[in-house]
Amino acid sequence: MLATVRWLIFGSPLPTSAEAHQRLGKLKALAVFSSDALSSVAYSTEEMLLVLLAAGSAGREVLVPISLAIASLLAIVAVSYRQTIHGYPSGGGAYIVAHDNLGKWPGLIAAAALLTGYVLTVAVSITAGVAAISSALPALGPYRVEMCVLATTLVAWANLRGAKESGTVFSIPTYGFIITLMTLVVVGLYRSISGRLVPLPAGSQGNVVGPTEALGSVLILRAFASGCAALTGVEAISNGIPAFEKPEAKNAGQTLVAMVILLASMFLGISFLAHGLAVTPVEGETVVSQIGRQLFGTGPLYLLLQAMTALILILAANTSFADFPRLSAILARDGYLPRQFKRLGDRLVFSNGIIALAVLSAVLIIIFGGQTHSLIPLYAVGVFLSFTLSQTGMVRHWQRVRGGGWRYKAVVNGVGACATGMVSLVVLGTKFARGAWVVAVVIPLVVLWFDAIRRHYGNVADELSLEGMVPVAWHDADTEERRKVIVPLSGVHRASLAALHFARSLSADVKAVIVDVDPKDTGAVLEKWRTWGRDVPLVVLESPYRSTIGPLLQYLDEQDQRDPDRGLAVVVLPEFVCARWWHHLLHNQWALLVRSALTYRYGRSGEGRVIVGVPYFLGK
Amino acid sequence: MLATVRWLIFGSPLPTSAEAHQRLGKLKALAVFSSDALSSVAYSTEEMLLVLLAAGSAGREVLVPISLAIASLLAIVAVSYRQTIHGYPSGGGAYIVAHDNLGKWPGLIAAAALLTGYVLTVAVSITAGVAAISSALPALGPYRVEMCVLATTLVAWANLRGAKESGTVFSIPTYGFIITLMTLVVVGLYRSISGRLVPLPAGSQGNVVGPTEALGSVLILRAFASGCAALTGVEAISNGIPAFEKPEAKNAGQTLVAMVILLASMFLGISFLAHGLAVTPVEGETVVSQIGRQLFGTGPLYLLLQAMTALILILAANTSFADFPRLSAILARDGYLPRQFKRLGDRLVFSNGIIALAVLSAVLIIIFGGQTHSLIPLYAVGVFLSFTLSQTGMVRHWQRVRGGGWRYKAVVNGVGACATGMVSLVVLGTKFARGAWVVAVVIPLVVLWFDAIRRHYGNVADELSLEGMVPVAWHDADTEERRKVIVPLSGVHRASLAALHFARSLSADVKAVIVDVDPKDTGAVLEKWRTWGRDVPLVVLESPYRSTIGPLLQYLDEQDQRDPDRGLAVVVLPEFVCARWWHHLLHNQWALLVRSALTYRYGRSGEGRVIVGVPYFLGK
Repeated sequence: MLATVRWLIFGSPLPTSAEAHQRLGKLKALAVFSSDALSSVAYSTEEMLLVLLAAGSAGREVLVPISLAIASLLAIVAVSYRQTIHGYPSGGGAYIVAHDNLGKWPGLIAAAALLTGYVLTVAVSITAGVAAISSALPALGPYRVEMCVLATTLVAWANLRGAKESGTVFSIPTYGFIITLMTLVVVGLYRSISGRLVPLPAGSQGNVVGPTEALGSVLILRAFASGCAALTGVEAISNGIPAFEKPEAKNAGQTLVAMVILLASMFLGISFLAHGLAVTPVEGETVVSQIGRQLFGTGPLYLLLQAMTALILILAANTSFADFPRLSAILARDGYLPRQFKRLGDRLVFSNGIIALAVLSAVLIIIFGGQTHSLIPLYAVGVFLSFTLSQTGMVRHWQRVRGGGWRYKAVVNGVGACATGMVSLVVLGTKFARGAWVVAVVIPLVVLWFDAIRRHYGNVADELSLEGMVPVAWHDADTEERRKVIVPLSGVHRASLAALHFARSLSADVKAVIVDVDPKDTGAVLEKWRTWGRDVPLVVLESPYRSTIGPLLQYLDEQDQRDPDRGLAVVVLPEFVCARWWHHLLHNQWALLVRSALTYRYGRSGEGRVIVGVPYFLGK
Repeated sequence: MLATVRWLIFGSPLPTSAEAHQRLGKLKALAVFSSDALSSVAYSTEEMLLVLLAAGSAGREVLVPISLAIASLLAIVAVSYRQTIHGYPSGGGAYIVAHDNLGKWPGLIAAAALLTGYVLTVAVSITAGVAAISSALPALGPYRVEMCVLATTLVAWANLRGAKESGTVFSIPTYGFIITLMTLVVVGLYRSISGRLVPLPAGSQGNVVGPTEALGSVLILRAFASGCAALTGVEAISNGIPAFEKPEAKNAGQTLVAMVILLASMFLGISFLAHGLAVTPVEGETVVSQIGRQLFGTGPLYLLLQAMTALILILAANTSFADFPRLSAILARDGYLPRQFKRLGDRLVFSNGIIALAVLSAVLIIIFGGQTHSLIPLYAVGVFLSFTLSQTGMVRHWQRVRGGGWRYKAVVNGVGACATGMVSLVVLGTKFARGAWVVAVVIPLVVLWFDAIRRHYGNVADELSLEGMVPVAWHDADTEERRKVIVPLSGVHRASLAALHFARSLSADVKAVIVDVDPKDTGAVLEKWRTWGRDVPLVVLESPYRSTIGPLLQYLDEQDQRDPDRGLAVVVLPEFVCARWWHHLLHNQWALLVRSALTYRYGRSGEGRVIVGVPYFLGK
């Protein structure tokens, strides 16, 4: 029955041999990897306007120039990342590029920045999408956090079913969003050319707050930093090259170019229209929605735009669900994350990474109460930090590899590194007190954690290594004959008899042991022993303080010390297994306690006590 | 360090040989067993008045007659229970008496009634005590539930330290309460005789509500049912006879008589004074407090009375903490409760019973928000049900045992049974809708639970029984030679080598098995096997769906079927034990998964797979 439920939810298990076919064509890959980048169109213009209008409506005049600056930055980053894709056709995320070229620590910093970035992408996208839905349907407002958690679970579920299907699931909203938003921009441009794009009357959209700050360089930098959210997600394709159909690098490069052109057009278009219509951000309606209502009216086209915006925002989280597990698996392979992350699940996806991402982002959503605006200041720092490290790494890469036109390529990546490095500082500086400090604390901690895990695996490998050991002969029959075996008992019954029979087959030197807690019980055991014990001696241990474990451990120590060259005594434990798990609550779990106590007994000296469990099954 | 903390909190462990000395003298026994009964003086008169004043101040006129009726009932119950103590000197609680004389089911009903009664005693006493404190110090009001839970924990802690010490801890408040309350009664009687006991002016104590009901028989019965709370706790001594110094029965009988005389005097005295002073219960001040303030003024004597009342109310819970664990241990001995309840802890007390009572009553307190009045209707039903069953049992007892004056004794207990039986019906009838139905539901469920546990233990005993079995020879060397041994591996390292060496010492027929999930890992194992495997064959199992357990289980099944007369193959598992528990989170826990899968594998057929764990300890 469990298997049926599993099949209904996740589909049939896929054999490993199916792996090569689970690749994405360019169209599906664009849907899977670009929803994060493209969906930022829905909020980045609004975030800039929110900052700029602190200087009154004059602030709106610099909106288009700042948007052009961000679009230029986007072009620089895209050209730079296109080189990365061709330099690292097997999947060159910031981690791999920085690790290979700059060394371990820059690599780990890039990895930590990327992982935190993915978690934030899920949280920001899901909360923004749910906010869009709940502002359309205000009745859902009180359940915002619950809806966010539900949406996160649904996206995680789609990904647990496998990569190919997620491409199918997400194509419709991504292309739906692109088409409706491009239609909006084209309609707006046509009206502008025909002179019918008139500004909205001031005050028609709610309360416009008067200027509280001068339109100075600090304000412009802060607006620029907010708008940089438009660049998040651009790196997704370069991390995910192995998911593309062959030839992977070529397809990935073309998909990146297509995505950046779409992103730049939509972003500039929305900023141009927001300026032309003199839109003011208000509580309860987004900037894109205001533009849509002006140009489309309130008919089906407007509703489609809103629905697609909400959908792509929620599905943008999917980009992270494609990349986070993949990067975790790479880090696990290198020993920086627990091994469990590199295990392929039933459906050929890294299930543990998907689950970890879902849990972490759900926790973040709950902590921040499902509020997008509280999460935004944490968002861009990690992304730009990984951009910078990745492109600095590419400069070193070209210096090392050389090849045709390497100087030109190094300059391109160098320009990208300088630009994104400066932006990192601007974002950190202008948003530090508003929340960016959290990321500045978390990333170093994650880096230290990576290193601690790596060291642990190194220690284990050293301790288990057979290096320098010489094969010795198997134990012979003599050793076997002289083996000491101890059988702790709590009574004389079928389960203990099964254990005794096995013990006697291991050695002739078997001793049964009972701890005397209740003289009446002990008397009954001694009585039965006459019939059933035969040549096996029964040792009764005193227990003045009624402990059932202490005297046994002490006795074992004594036995070991008496005859040290015969090694530690082997313990044979009778264990009865109840038919129902809750039946175990009615028993003392003595065998389990003895097992735990014995397992950890010799941890200090490095010697291990062999424990033999002889189970006896109860039918009812 | 853990041992030091344990010692600081609970004291040194006591050897079993110290058990006989942990007995209570009569004075200490009165303190331990009577606080429940005596403390009811603090609220039973008030509960009656609250019902009666629905008929206006005329209701107060029947207060003293009803109190006399309750005092007569108390005398009947006491005489009846004194006979029980002498009939059952080894501790004759209602469970034992009903079980012995009326059979299993009445015994279980009595046991369920007693256990629920003990839980309610703790909840009612603690909440009433905390309410007394928080009405004196209103600032503590909002923390009522927290204070109740804290008080429950403190009483449980005192009991976990051991019986003797709890006698010492609780003597001061019990005797302090008896002395101050008797002083109050004597002062009041003196004033009454000297004609200086004048009624308080109407309305001086707050709003007196006009009559809403006629003073009929229903109202009087309801007041009587409320006042019967005064009888709860009378049975405590007869349950706890084994805790008395020798001669136990004589000492217990004398203590019972002393307790009942004290209880009747104080109860009647308070009712007489409440009538004489025409006290009206008000929100925020108890009836006893009003009487005390009138007779003692607001000086130190009044404050002492209040403090002692609050203390004895909280400590009344202690009666249950003495009896609940003892009854649980008896029920566990008879197989009606999990065995864990009969285990004596470090300090020679039934620690599990104490902890269970503390948890159950804390849950009840939290559910009812720390409100005494909500708990009162649940309270008396169980108590009177157990009185009735116990005394009916005693009638049968005398009929069976006979002996001198048995007819007289049977009549005494018969009168007691009839009286308490009728009171049970009155209490259930008048309080059913107000909460008594909860108890009427819980008691049958607990009885069914007792029976299910008993049946489980019976089944286990039958299945493990050696009855009818014939001793067979130990396995001989031949069997041993022909034993099949399987060693599942995840790699070739020191831990797996240790397991292999042990496996080879068990049999010459050893096969190592590896599940091929990652061809690269498998290749490395095969490579190393040339050096280290020698004559042991290594079987590589295909795993198209990447499961590490499934192919192994299938292989074991095949091995078992191939050669069934050689029995199930023995599995030897290499297990490495990390130095820190959290290091285990970094490993796949494959050995643990294999162990669990194998343990439950043969549950249906009753055969058990012997599993040998060969641990290898990691130092760092």
